[in-house]
Amino acid sequence: MITIDDIRAAQKRIANGVQRTPMPRSDALSDQCDCHVYVKLENLQRTGSFKERGALNKLLQLSPAERLLGVVAASAGNHAQGVAYHARRLGIQATIVMPENSPLVKVRSTRDFGAEVILFGENYDAAYVHAQKIKNEQNRILIHAFDDLEIIAGQGTVGLEIIEEFPTVDAVIIPIGGGGLISGSACAIKTLHPNVRVIGVNIAASPAMKRAIEVGHIIELPAGRTICEGISVRQVGELSFAMTKRFVDDIVTVDDEEVANAILQLLEKEKTVAEGAGAAPMAALLYRSLELAGKNVVICLSGGNINVNLISRIIERGLIKDGRRVQLKVVIPDRPGMLADLLAHVAQASANVLEVQHQRWSRRLTLNETEVSLVLETQGRDHVDSLIQQLEKAGLVASEVEV
Amino acid sequence: MITIDDIRAAQKRIANGVQRTPMPRSDALSDQCDCHVYVKLENLQRTGSFKERGALNKLLQLSPAERLLGVVAASAGNHAQGVAYHARRLGIQATIVMPENSPLVKVRSTRDFGAEVILFGENYDAAYVHAQKIKNEQNRILIHAFDDLEIIAGQGTVGLEIIEEFPTVDAVIIPIGGGGLISGSACAIKTLHPNVRVIGVNIAASPAMKRAIEVGHIIELPAGRTICEGISVRQVGELSFAMTKRFVDDIVTVDDEEVANAILQLLEKEKTVAEGAGAAPMAALLYRSLELAGKNVVICLSGGNINVNLISRIIERGLIKDGRRVQLKVVIPDRPGMLADLLAHVAQASANVLEVQHQRWSRRLTLNETEVSLVLETQGRDHVDSLIQQLEKAGLVASEVEV
Repeated sequence: MITIDDIRAAQKRIANGVQRTPMPRSDALSDQCDCHVYVKLENLQRTGSFKERGALNKLLQLSPAERLLGVVAASAGNHAQGVAYHARRLGIQATIVMPENSPLVKVRSTRDFGAEVILFGENYDAAYVHAQKIKNEQNRILIHAFDDLEIIAGQGTVGLEIIEEFPTVDAVIIPIGGGGLISGSACAIKTLHPNVRVIGVNIAASPAMKRAIEVGHIIELPAGRTICEGISVRQVGELSFAMTKRFVDDIVTVDDEEVANAILQLLEKEKTVAEGAGAAPMAALLYRSLELAGKNVVICLSGGNINVNLISRIIERGLIKDGRRVQLKVVIPDRPGMLADLLAHVAQASANVLEVQHQRWSRRLTLNETEVSLVLETQGRDHVDSLIQQLEKAGLVASEVEV
Repeated sequence: MITIDDIRAAQKRIANGVQRTPMPRSDALSDQCDCHVYVKLENLQRTGSFKERGALNKLLQLSPAERLLGVVAASAGNHAQGVAYHARRLGIQATIVMPENSPLVKVRSTRDFGAEVILFGENYDAAYVHAQKIKNEQNRILIHAFDDLEIIAGQGTVGLEIIEEFPTVDAVIIPIGGGGLISGSACAIKTLHPNVRVIGVNIAASPAMKRAIEVGHIIELPAGRTICEGISVRQVGELSFAMTKRFVDDIVTVDDEEVANAILQLLEKEKTVAEGAGAAPMAALLYRSLELAGKNVVICLSGGNINVNLISRIIERGLIKDGRRVQLKVVIPDRPGMLADLLAHVAQASANVLEVQHQRWSRRLTLNETEVSLVLETQGRDHVDSLIQQLEKAGLVASEVEV
C-alpha cells in the first residue's frame, strides 16, 4: 500500500505537468440535492481526465535505461491519452492497446499525442492481455492503468487537492473502475480527515469492486455493456482492492439511464462536458439515498472524453423525456390543402417541425383519410397538451406516439 | 466614462456574490493557432454568464428606497438571469422583459430565479422599449443591460481579473453586443497594461459596434438573425461606444457557421459549453487573421446558456461535415433478401445504421430495381470511402448524397 507521503511526493513531482483543476460550487445541484455540492473538474486536465496524474508520476520515476525501452499500456482511452501525452513530452516511445470499440475521440487523441495505437479485443481486459504480450515480446515497460503503487499515488493527488482546498468537506463521491483513483484519493482524504465519508460509484453493468468487497476477494465478472467504458472493468487490482477495503466507506451502483441524465444536467446546468464515468458520481448523488442533507459534498467529475454523437443522442433522449420533442399522429381527410392546414395550426402554436410523414395504407384509415406523423420540437409537456387541444378545436384528432 | 478605480471598487463590492472564474490554458487550441491560448470561463458563473457582475454591482448601489420600488430590465437572457438571481438574493422584486424568441433555457432559469418574466417583441431592442414603459408606469428602477456606468464597472471586473492573473498576456479577445463587457474590460486592461491588444468580436448579422466605430457615431441596424442572440443588438450604448472607441484596438466579425464550429470544438476539446456569443472570440481566433503567432492570448468565453437542442443540431452538422454521418443511396434488385444483404455489408464495415428508406418510383430506376437510402454513423471520410468500395466489390453501386 501507499501512504499520504507517497501522494505528497507525487504531487510535488507532477506539479509542473498537470493542472490543479478548479472545484466550483454548483448552486443548481446544491438546491436540487439539499446539500452543498462542489464539482472537481478533472475533465479540464489537458488530456480530458485525471489519468495523466498517475501516468506522469509513473513515467517520471522510470530510469534513463527504462525510458529508452519505451512503454506499453492497455486502456479504454483515458489512461491511453495520459500515457501518450506525457510520454511524448518526456521523449519516451509509447504503444497503447485499446479495445476495438473504444470511443473515436479517445482513439484519435491518443494517436494525436504521438502514441502507436493498437486496437485489440472487446474490452479492457482483453486489451490488457495483448499489452502484456507486447511487453514480453518487445521488452517494454508496462504502465498498468490502476494496479500500481506509483499510478495510485498519482491519482491520489485528486483527493489531496480536494481535502487541501476544502478541509470542511463532509463527503467525497468518486467513480470506481479498476480502483486506482479511489484508492489513492481515499488514502489522502482519510489519512488527513478520517471523518470525511468516501463514497465509491460502480456502474451497474460492471460492479467489479462492489462485488469484490461484498465477497471479500477479487472476482472476475462477465463483460458488461455500458456508456461508462472508462469504469467498465471486469476485475479490479490487488492493491486497489486492499486500499478500497481499508479506506472507502460505501460503494453504490448507478445505471446508464441515470448516468445519461447526469451528463445532460451537467451540460445544461454546469456548462461542462462529462463522459459516462465522470458523471457517475453525480448520478449517485441524484438517484441514490446517500443521506447527505445539509452536508458539504464534492463530486469528482473524473473525465470528459465522450464522443459528440453520444452527447447528441443523450440530448435527443432528454428532450423526448422532457416533452420537448414529440411525435404526433394526426388523421386528416385525403384531399389537397389539408396537410398545409394542419401545418398552419402547428406553426400558430409555435411548434417547430422536424419531420413529416404521410401514409395511406393503415387498416385503421378509411379510403379517404390519410395519417400524418409529425416530429415536433416544443417547449415541454404543457405546450404539447395545448397544441393537441388547439388541433382538436380545429376538428383534427392528434395522438401522441410513445417514442 | 468610468476609470480603473470604479472597476476596482466594483470588484470589492461584488467579491462575495460572484465567482472568480478559472482561466485554464488550452493545449489543443494553442497548438492549432500557434500561440498560447487561455480561456476565461465566465460560463461557470452561477447564472452561466458574466452578466451578473454588472447586475450585482448596480443592485448593491440602489438605496433602500429604490430597492423597495423593485427593478425592471430588458434582456435576451443573460442579463435577465443576472438581475433575477441577485435581486432575489437581495430581496428585490424583479420584472424582466425578454424577446419572444429567447432561448427556453434562459427563460426557464430567469423564472426559476424568482423574477416575473414578460415575453415581448422580436428582439432585444423591442423588449427594451417595453421595459421602459413598465419603468414609467410602475415607477421601477430600470437596470440597463449595458449603457450604465455601474453595469460597465461590474463587467470590467472580467478584464481586471484577466490582467491581474496574467500580466504577461499580449491580447484579449472579447465579444461585443451592446458593448458593456468590452468597455469595462478594455478600460481595466489598457489602464494597467497599455500594450495589451484588446480585440472585439461582433457577430456578422448584427455588427452594431463595428459599424458605429467605422462611421464615427452610433447607428441603428436592421435586426439580424443569428445563433448569437446574446450579442445581437441593433444599437450600442453611448457610454459603451465612447469607451470602445477609446480603449479597443480592433473589431472583427464572425458568422454563425464559424461560431457553430467554435462551439463544437469547445465541447470536444475543452469539455465546456459555450453559447453563441461565448464562442465568438474563439471563432475569431480560428478564422480571422489576427497576427497572434507566439503570443499569449486570452479568449473570453462570456457565457454558456445555450439550448441543448441547438447543441444537438450543431453536433449533427459537425458530424456531417466531418464525414462521421453520411447518407448513401444504393440501387438494389427488387427481390426478397437484397436489403438484408446490403445491411450485412454495412454491418461488416462497422458502420452504424441510423435510418433506412426504400423507394421504387424514381424514373431513374427500372421496374425491377429499388433504391435504398441509408443514413449511417461512420468514423470519418476514409471509413465512408472504404465502405463504398466494399459495396462496389459486392456489385452494389452506392453514391453519397449531399446533405
